[in-house]
Amino acid sequence: MTQPPAPAADFSTAHADTLQRALTAITERSYWSQYPESPSPRVYGESAAADGQAAYEALRGARFALDGQPADGTWVATERSPFGVDLGVEYPHAGADALVAAARAGMTAWRDAGPRARVGVCLEILDRIHRHVFTLANAVQFTTGQAFVMAFQAGGAHALDRALEAVAYSYAEMTRHAATADWDKPAGKGATLSMTKTFHVVPRGVALVVGCRTFPTWNSYPGLFASLATGNPVLVKPHPGAVLPLALTVRYAREVLAEAGFDPNLVQLAAEAPGEGLATTLATRPEVRIVDFTGSSEYGDWLEEHARQAAVYTEKAGLNTVVVDSTDDFAGMCRNIAFSLTLYSGQMCTTSQNLLIPAAGIETEAGHRSFDEVAGGIAGAVAKLTADDARAVELTGAIGDERVLDRIDAARKVGAVVLDSRTLTHPAYPDAVVRSPLLVRLGAGDAEVYGSEWFGPITFLVAVDSTDAAIDVFRRTVGERGGLTAGVYSTSEAVLAAVEEAALEVGVHLSANLTGGVFVNQSAAFSDFHGSGANPAANAALTDGAYVASRFRIVQSRRHR
Amino acid sequence: MTQPPAPAADFSTAHADTLQRALTAITERSYWSQYPESPSPRVYGESAAADGQAAYEALRGARFALDGQPADGTWVATERSPFGVDLGVEYPHAGADALVAAARAGMTAWRDAGPRARVGVCLEILDRIHRHVFTLANAVQFTTGQAFVMAFQAGGAHALDRALEAVAYSYAEMTRHAATADWDKPAGKGATLSMTKTFHVVPRGVALVVGCRTFPTWNSYPGLFASLATGNPVLVKPHPGAVLPLALTVRYAREVLAEAGFDPNLVQLAAEAPGEGLATTLATRPEVRIVDFTGSSEYGDWLEEHARQAAVYTEKAGLNTVVVDSTDDFAGMCRNIAFSLTLYSGQMCTTSQNLLIPAAGIETEAGHRSFDEVAGGIAGAVAKLTADDARAVELTGAIGDERVLDRIDAARKVGAVVLDSRTLTHPAYPDAVVRSPLLVRLGAGDAEVYGSEWFGPITFLVAVDSTDAAIDVFRRTVGERGGLTAGVYSTSEAVLAAVEEAALEVGVHLSANLTGGVFVNQSAAFSDFHGSGANPAANAALTDGAYVASRFRIVQSRRHR
Repeated sequence: MTQPPAPAADFSTAHADTLQRALTAITERSYWSQYPESPSPRVYGESAAADGQAAYEALRGARFALDGQPADGTWVATERSPFGVDLGVEYPHAGADALVAAARAGMTAWRDAGPRARVGVCLEILDRIHRHVFTLANAVQFTTGQAFVMAFQAGGAHALDRALEAVAYSYAEMTRHAATADWDKPAGKGATLSMTKTFHVVPRGVALVVGCRTFPTWNSYPGLFASLATGNPVLVKPHPGAVLPLALTVRYAREVLAEAGFDPNLVQLAAEAPGEGLATTLATRPEVRIVDFTGSSEYGDWLEEHARQAAVYTEKAGLNTVVVDSTDDFAGMCRNIAFSLTLYSGQMCTTSQNLLIPAAGIETEAGHRSFDEVAGGIAGAVAKLTADDARAVELTGAIGDERVLDRIDAARKVGAVVLDSRTLTHPAYPDAVVRSPLLVRLGAGDAEVYGSEWFGPITFLVAVDSTDAAIDVFRRTVGERGGLTAGVYSTSEAVLAAVEEAALEVGVHLSANLTGGVFVNQSAAFSDFHGSGANPAANAALTDGAYVASRFRIVQSRRHR
Repeated sequence: MTQPPAPAADFSTAHADTLQRALTAITERSYWSQYPESPSPRVYGESAAADGQAAYEALRGARFALDGQPADGTWVATERSPFGVDLGVEYPHAGADALVAAARAGMTAWRDAGPRARVGVCLEILDRIHRHVFTLANAVQFTTGQAFVMAFQAGGAHALDRALEAVAYSYAEMTRHAATADWDKPAGKGATLSMTKTFHVVPRGVALVVGCRTFPTWNSYPGLFASLATGNPVLVKPHPGAVLPLALTVRYAREVLAEAGFDPNLVQLAAEAPGEGLATTLATRPEVRIVDFTGSSEYGDWLEEHARQAAVYTEKAGLNTVVVDSTDDFAGMCRNIAFSLTLYSGQMCTTSQNLLIPAAGIETEAGHRSFDEVAGGIAGAVAKLTADDARAVELTGAIGDERVLDRIDAARKVGAVVLDSRTLTHPAYPDAVVRSPLLVRLGAGDAEVYGSEWFGPITFLVAVDSTDAAIDVFRRTVGERGGLTAGVYSTSEAVLAAVEEAALEVGVHLSANLTGGVFVNQSAAFSDFHGSGANPAANAALTDGAYVASRFRIVQSRRHR
């Protein structure tokens, strides 16, 4: 007699309460978070930070094994840290054929496990990642260039919250109707037609997640976990510059899948060699039926155009815009804007690029402020935040993409520099590439400049004729090029309403009068939607019903009872 | 002082109970129907049938006015009844520019009305149509060629049920989270960050519905009402051969919209002149952001490829297949299959085309039946159903598309005719074009024949080596070409399970052992899904969450409290 296999872990029961709370959260959309965002020892324990850092250090300069994943015997190492430190991690490489074949092997069992079991596994993966969140935060920091606290929050806790949100939507969508139904139709003369119907949730096929350099986890997790929860095997193709955060994610996912009795190859790392173009190869494979992508508009548009066999979800570039009309807290406005421009030196897809300010100035609680005074107020607040290099780098982090540096140089020449970008020295990492924000004044006629995206710490203060003219520019530029966030400052309800109407027309999320601890470039899981799918910056929102509903299909069978 | 406008009708309160019942139905998916399917005078009253017929007769030979809709002054009349009677109805014509501009005019007010009001209007439209369901049934009968009872049911009551189902899904999707939320995030030291957030439902843009000849209402209503309920103006482009049912629909919709205080041009008829290609013009307009289509795979694929600015929902052609393995009710099986083949002379997108039968025959409750006995049993049942012309035409209806007649001729030559198609004479309409089903025997090697769709009363009895071989053919042909329905007859749970597994793989809905009053080609609203989106026959299901979720977007605004 052969030994029966060890009983697989039941993770759905263990995480039932979390799922229930998350399901409530996605309907209420008020404040809730599952994963504490504070890296404080009071929350995570005295040794958590040091343990996580040590675990991260142990990964450096070594091969990152993913046992059981297909491998062609070559190893790839493509990361260069924006902090100027050496990562030297090598990842196993495999070709598209091997990855796709391995992904499909476990698909039927994963499908047949059903929504509850799959969601249980996903929640255990999130829990497992969370247990190693300091390790992950270090990996995010040193690949993306984010400062540690941001890497911990955006790359760790918030990314996990977004993943949980996507899993909750997936569960709700898969279970919005009965899994089986008795159907009894009166057929006249007391007779009844009686059938039993089964509504199977079937996956689309292999899912591909194409990660970005700046937010490898936050931007990849919703698609990754929505696809996995709905029954699809997932190939995770990281940006060559930010592999480690997703490699860790894949490792924990595979661990949990195996413990639950499923094929770990349901989640695989698709690390690529330099110039290999593995995303393009995979995205156009007939077996690949879902693609999630964050990155450039150019490649996002290419995917939408060419990966026709797949449902393609893209988050691309846009023109995030703030209309400045008036304020009753001038200093608060300047500080708030300055903080949002400085955070991660403008390398968020949600950072404002265009500040539209009336050339004649604005009204404030302390009287009229000219355009130059408004510009000076914002510039002064940025200068204050970045005055001390050692403190500044904890906000700005570092810059990994050399094209950002070229763009700063180019932006200096397109208008009048209001605040120049400085080179900052990181006290701990002397080779870190750090720049403070650049503020440039433009005229309303410079649409060829502010009408394109200048990704990085580059902000245009555009002098417009009036607030009405600002709204026109807003409507035109965001309508044509898209945007993920918009802001408005005004003491007039009529202006707030007019900007809100324009925001609805061009489909961009709007924040009004932020002067405190909430910033236009931040969105909270379970409450704020990220992206809308209603303008060219993204063809979907993370996360809503539409984001998950097409990741699976219902196939029914029926027979008489 | 000017007179205040008359208060607009509040239809949401009037239909609140219906909505609630429908919302329950789409989660339970057991039997429920809002619109009685029996045209009996006991249900609809003694005069309903005569009144409806008279109303239909009054429309013939006249101009069908749609007051307030843009018109270029020309009128189009493109219908030719399969029953050989003259309709002679002329419809107002307008160009794409005028239609699109008029559609957009009322969009903002419709958006701002919100989900509850919009859904109320949609339910009142359905009620209004239902009050004229006999008129509609006559219009469906004489344009599509369906026999009266089928036109009443599929074209009237069932179409309305499907519309209500789509409206319920739309409402559920738009309201699955709070419309506004208070967000209070602990900010340390007893402080709280407090915001109010508003989640606006915004439409995608102008929606286009491209109708088909055979099911102008049933196949158009889900998309039409899902788009309208979610805030999109709708252009209804009927098939030139079946305009009247949708013209009536548009008329009632416009009536209700106006009564509710909205722009009636939110629903417009886009009747086209012969050869105009209006669907193509409209589908590729930048303002058109949703397209719903039912019809040929060729044009459906074209739309998916070219209407890239829009969300495109298509239902196309496929290979509906039945695996015959064994039965414990041979006569019931033959009768059931025969009825489904005869109904509307096979002109349903759900009619079986390929019956896969082991060449060595099958086991039945009365012992072994050879292939020829099985074929003979089915052929005999069809012959019996169609023996009497006067009775037969109430099942078969008439054929409107001459290509179907050519196809019957061609099909006679591709294999051995088991039962020839007969020309039937309609007692009431001598010019009606009526044909009984053609049954042709093929071998498993004739894949180039049965691997393509032969729309119309054409069925292939394919002799396969075994049930396993049948499942292989099923998996291959439906996987490659798609299918909307599949059937299996077997007394073996193992065979039923194997066919079900194959059906899940190729994403087709399966009916097992139908021998009574349920037929493979019929699907019940609120219970059965129609199409799956999981194979080439359709890229979406009517109706589920995925069918409605992308017809609108959430755009949020937030500010501090």
